[in-house]
Amino acid sequence: MPVGLGPLPVLHPVPGFRLGIASAGIKRAGRKDVVVMEAAPGSVIAGVFTTNAFCAAPVTLCKQHLAHHPRYLLVNTGNANAGTGKPGMQAAVRTCEALAELVQVGPEQVLPFSTGVIGELLPADKIIAVLPQALANLAESNWAEAAEGIMTTDTLPKGCSRQISLGGQTVTITGISKGAGMIRPNMATMLGYIATDAKIAPPLLQRLVKEAADLSFNRITIDGDTSTNDSCMLIATGQADMVEIIDYASADYRALSDAVKGVMLELAQAIVRDGEGATKFVTIQVNGGGNQDECLDVAYAVAHSPLIKTALFASDPNWGRILAAVGYAGVPELNVEKIDVYLDEVCITRQGGRAADYTEEQGARVMGQEEITIRIELGRGQHSETLWTTDLSHEYVRINAEYRT
Amino acid sequence: MPVGLGPLPVLHPVPGFRLGIASAGIKRAGRKDVVVMEAAPGSVIAGVFTTNAFCAAPVTLCKQHLAHHPRYLLVNTGNANAGTGKPGMQAAVRTCEALAELVQVGPEQVLPFSTGVIGELLPADKIIAVLPQALANLAESNWAEAAEGIMTTDTLPKGCSRQISLGGQTVTITGISKGAGMIRPNMATMLGYIATDAKIAPPLLQRLVKEAADLSFNRITIDGDTSTNDSCMLIATGQADMVEIIDYASADYRALSDAVKGVMLELAQAIVRDGEGATKFVTIQVNGGGNQDECLDVAYAVAHSPLIKTALFASDPNWGRILAAVGYAGVPELNVEKIDVYLDEVCITRQGGRAADYTEEQGARVMGQEEITIRIELGRGQHSETLWTTDLSHEYVRINAEYRT
Repeated sequence: MPVGLGPLPVLHPVPGFRLGIASAGIKRAGRKDVVVMEAAPGSVIAGVFTTNAFCAAPVTLCKQHLAHHPRYLLVNTGNANAGTGKPGMQAAVRTCEALAELVQVGPEQVLPFSTGVIGELLPADKIIAVLPQALANLAESNWAEAAEGIMTTDTLPKGCSRQISLGGQTVTITGISKGAGMIRPNMATMLGYIATDAKIAPPLLQRLVKEAADLSFNRITIDGDTSTNDSCMLIATGQADMVEIIDYASADYRALSDAVKGVMLELAQAIVRDGEGATKFVTIQVNGGGNQDECLDVAYAVAHSPLIKTALFASDPNWGRILAAVGYAGVPELNVEKIDVYLDEVCITRQGGRAADYTEEQGARVMGQEEITIRIELGRGQHSETLWTTDLSHEYVRINAEYRT
Repeated sequence: MPVGLGPLPVLHPVPGFRLGIASAGIKRAGRKDVVVMEAAPGSVIAGVFTTNAFCAAPVTLCKQHLAHHPRYLLVNTGNANAGTGKPGMQAAVRTCEALAELVQVGPEQVLPFSTGVIGELLPADKIIAVLPQALANLAESNWAEAAEGIMTTDTLPKGCSRQISLGGQTVTITGISKGAGMIRPNMATMLGYIATDAKIAPPLLQRLVKEAADLSFNRITIDGDTSTNDSCMLIATGQADMVEIIDYASADYRALSDAVKGVMLELAQAIVRDGEGATKFVTIQVNGGGNQDECLDVAYAVAHSPLIKTALFASDPNWGRILAAVGYAGVPELNVEKIDVYLDEVCITRQGGRAADYTEEQGARVMGQEEITIRIELGRGQHSETLWTTDLSHEYVRINAEYRT
């Protein structure tokens, strides 16, 4: 049961960006498993990708094609085309070539994305066979269908949309995402596609997607595993009637940046809310660090501790486990006597020890909630980091142990 | 159910080292929860401790006392005396003073150890009250009782004993350990006590315990959490009729070192075998690394991946998860095309892709075993590292989620 994740909100069309869906029967017959996205001529596309050394063939291709003014994105579910060697790369290339020929662009103008089972060869022919079907229903209004079309083991489609005013013009930012663990059993991947009709210079768009991913998709964790296929793409069609944003310090950049970051954060958090077996949505905030890295080290130590995650599942305010995780996070010369820890507004640890006025009842009340913030004050400096995670439930073990059986 | 862990073997007495047991009723009435160990005058004691910044009061005291020719070790279960601030430190000091007065040594000659619930004040008076009882039954033959006396949530006591011949004399190495996760819910700690009657110079003994711990207690992981109380002590009474070992390059040092390392490895592995909810005992061996660190990074990435651990629980030869973990371990410029992965003797991945001759049946056969070796060949150099871990089962979640309820 997703935590605080409802039906899709209204997803505003983005002028110049169309989406088409098809069923290729890659893993199951009748399922929508192919999505084609088309960006109008003149669009700019930027992206960030998994850092996993075993990145999948489509990720390698995407990185190469990004420099060649891509116009099309081709997504399939049911097969990750990862760990498939040269035949996998050839299959990915073939799908790009087939789509390119149908729409009369160069093959390097197609960005391929695959998600699903690792280690099985991509059934390129099945995908190629349904490309005309996907192209035939390309429409700017197809965001919701596309959100479903990129799902694998997600229990709900994920989307977010905002409109802002830039120079008196309405500019739209709409995005979809998928993923229900950082990596599913054999099902790899977190994917995100966000489009806007804003006009923005390519270097700024690349900077924006990197900054926004670092505050969203790169700040969520379910089980600490990093997929071979993770990709997040930001497309700007430039169809809005506005002056191109070329200055990082401009008000327009700031406004667009805030909106894009807001959309991407909501898309990323939706993945956590739909996390495997999740019963809790947990915000981990680390303040007072001497630098960003030590804030992140502490936050990840807490987020990845199976003991804390099982305590969250059990609604058990087990503050000793949080202290222990902070203690082994590897922060150099950590002075534990400066550390305060809060569950929401309840101070459970003050100056490294149990807070004198803390009662188990206060802690149990917060831990009983579906949404919980663990706040750690390090007392070392001015830096902060926040990330989002889930608990570790019986259901997580069941999903991941029984997936292939 | 522990994996491959039987009743205690014969634990040979170590001349010059006596153990006494008492029941203080710290957490439960009638349970043996206090152990006193006495090393004869002239003994040398060396140790390694948790690196957790939130180390418990007794750990801090132990480190201070080690320089003062300690003669007594005082262990209590039921309370970790961690996260207890100044009152906790005062309580630990009081127990040392009380034992010191009874046996007429300085308080700094007592090493205190606590394991149990975090964050509750140590009931020093209860411990002090039973010290005469523990002293009254001090005996060299009490190893098995002491192994039970230091248990908390362990399902079985853990001990190991070896005898070797040095210069025609029999030398004994006997040890006990406790721990069933790297850290239990509120129950902290891995503890190890190994004694020998060998004569060895203090600097060599310290070097030996560090080396041996790095190959044993520092190479096991159940959930990646590092306790606030972990301690491993090596005691040499010097009562064997032999020439003192003063040379690191000597045959005697090598023989003693091999035996101590063997005992400590068996004690450490026993903790994994008794790991929380463990159904599998898993050896992770990484060969062909460019240095030790990258071998360890890969081994820990595999050992800590919840996806791999649940696949082990499910006996599912899910090689894609292993590849993904190797890929995100952070090895710089990893060439995935050089990587081979084996389950026992079955090659599942060759040159970064699924081995051509691999069948699911072969993988399933190995994964169905209780003891499994995952071997990863990096093809980058000559370094190797090995560590030991367990699977992640429903029972792990149950134990850790329901511990305090």
